[in-house]
Amino acid sequence: MKLLRYGPLGKEKPGIIDEEGNIRSLSDIVSDISGATLSSDNLKRLRALDLSSLPIVDANVRLGACVGNVGKFLCIGLNYADHAAESGMTIPDEPEVFTKATSAISGPNDDIIKPRNSDKLDWEVELAIVIGKHTSYVSEEDAHKYIAGYCVCNDVSERTFQLEKGSQWDKGKGCDTFGPIGPWLVTSDEIKYPNNLSMWLEVNGKTFQNGNTKTMVFKPEYIVSYLSQFMSLQPGDIISTGTPPGVGLGQNPPLYLNPGDKIKLGIEGLGNQQQVVISHS
Amino acid sequence: MKLLRYGPLGKEKPGIIDEEGNIRSLSDIVSDISGATLSSDNLKRLRALDLSSLPIVDANVRLGACVGNVGKFLCIGLNYADHAAESGMTIPDEPEVFTKATSAISGPNDDIIKPRNSDKLDWEVELAIVIGKHTSYVSEEDAHKYIAGYCVCNDVSERTFQLEKGSQWDKGKGCDTFGPIGPWLVTSDEIKYPNNLSMWLEVNGKTFQNGNTKTMVFKPEYIVSYLSQFMSLQPGDIISTGTPPGVGLGQNPPLYLNPGDKIKLGIEGLGNQQQVVISHS
Repeated sequence: MKLLRYGPLGKEKPGIIDEEGNIRSLSDIVSDISGATLSSDNLKRLRALDLSSLPIVDANVRLGACVGNVGKFLCIGLNYADHAAESGMTIPDEPEVFTKATSAISGPNDDIIKPRNSDKLDWEVELAIVIGKHTSYVSEEDAHKYIAGYCVCNDVSERTFQLEKGSQWDKGKGCDTFGPIGPWLVTSDEIKYPNNLSMWLEVNGKTFQNGNTKTMVFKPEYIVSYLSQFMSLQPGDIISTGTPPGVGLGQNPPLYLNPGDKIKLGIEGLGNQQQVVISHS
Repeated sequence: MKLLRYGPLGKEKPGIIDEEGNIRSLSDIVSDISGATLSSDNLKRLRALDLSSLPIVDANVRLGACVGNVGKFLCIGLNYADHAAESGMTIPDEPEVFTKATSAISGPNDDIIKPRNSDKLDWEVELAIVIGKHTSYVSEEDAHKYIAGYCVCNDVSERTFQLEKGSQWDKGKGCDTFGPIGPWLVTSDEIKYPNNLSMWLEVNGKTFQNGNTKTMVFKPEYIVSYLSQFMSLQPGDIISTGTPPGVGLGQNPPLYLNPGDKIKLGIEGLGNQQQVVISHS
């Protein structure tokens, strides 16, 4: 299933994509696409629906973040060997974990606001995991039972804020609009091989990232197991799993985003996003 | 006002401390002590209440975290010069920002669970700021308008997870039960001088931390202004502002917590916490 949220910011309603690609309303079925919706029982209930009986939604509606009420938005850094190299960093022995502010979450096609004093605004196409079930100390083998699905994430980053203002990265990762997720939460049953998905990102029509999740250092099941050794994960938590090479920081010379720039990105089977960079008002 | 939450974990109800130190129920007035409650209008409404007309709550009730439904739990690292020295780190030029998982939040007197594979479990008494109003690009002069109040926070930390498993600290800061906050959210009007509050922490009856917020490098108003340059803050967000010297890591030799250890801590005007360390079941 492809689950989504649509409508004005802060008033998103739940929806689902039918076989013809239409958005169908789930408002009569669930209150939101969020942690409470993602239990396996609930997903089974959604899977049994006759989608043709649900109201069709205008295809031009704004899409919101594909998961609402996210409790934690965790990220894995330097998880593609070539990206670590282009960032001038070594591949970590264990997953490098940092946090994006949940207030950074935005819709897949919403504008990206360049913050005041930003001079190194960058992009990162990433496969994000959506947790479906309370997770604590799970094994890598069992981790798949706790993953509700996957989505595209643009881990928008401000490199000056991230790397030049202290040792910790969170300041440059959690700015407002730095976390577009969606267009859809695609449930795990439709993503049989999360470790072999092509992914790409282009800026103003030029391709900068062209990778595949098969070159990830730490795979999704390992990441969920690993994180669950440090903290419990709750349904609706998002874990973005790192980016392949081709970010702005890695260009020679480095290349960063400015107002007016257009970003498009996508992952095989998970849909596409497109954003326009705007100035902070 | 001293606002608090009481009752079983996950089912906390809102309360307030009256002049005699009794807990009075606010259940008929607000649904929870959380972002929505903390607007200045709402606090004005609470201030006008005749507390003697509200039901008294059993003094032995469990206290929950003093703020519910926290969106962000940000922390400032190395914000006391002497603590930076004992940690073998230099005072940062700008506030060092990291994140505690909101799933780590617990009541002020709840047990602290020593995670599996933890061998360096440590304590940190800290002054925490509670945001009352949407905050974005505010000046240091105006920052006080966005602070609803303050509370005690024990920024419980696992030093192996924090410092020996990569460059980013969040793994060692967000374990379940690593964020006791409370007993009360004390509104700003009652804390005239947040920059001159004594603070202390003892383990098994021996005092380890005995500091004062006057030795903070970056003061609360500066921190709120600074953070708001990077991300918006929402009502109910918590910012813990760093710890004075005397953590376990700073002892010679270092000293860490084990099951059975008893921690007591407090800050002048903000009340006390006490926790017992237990093993992960």
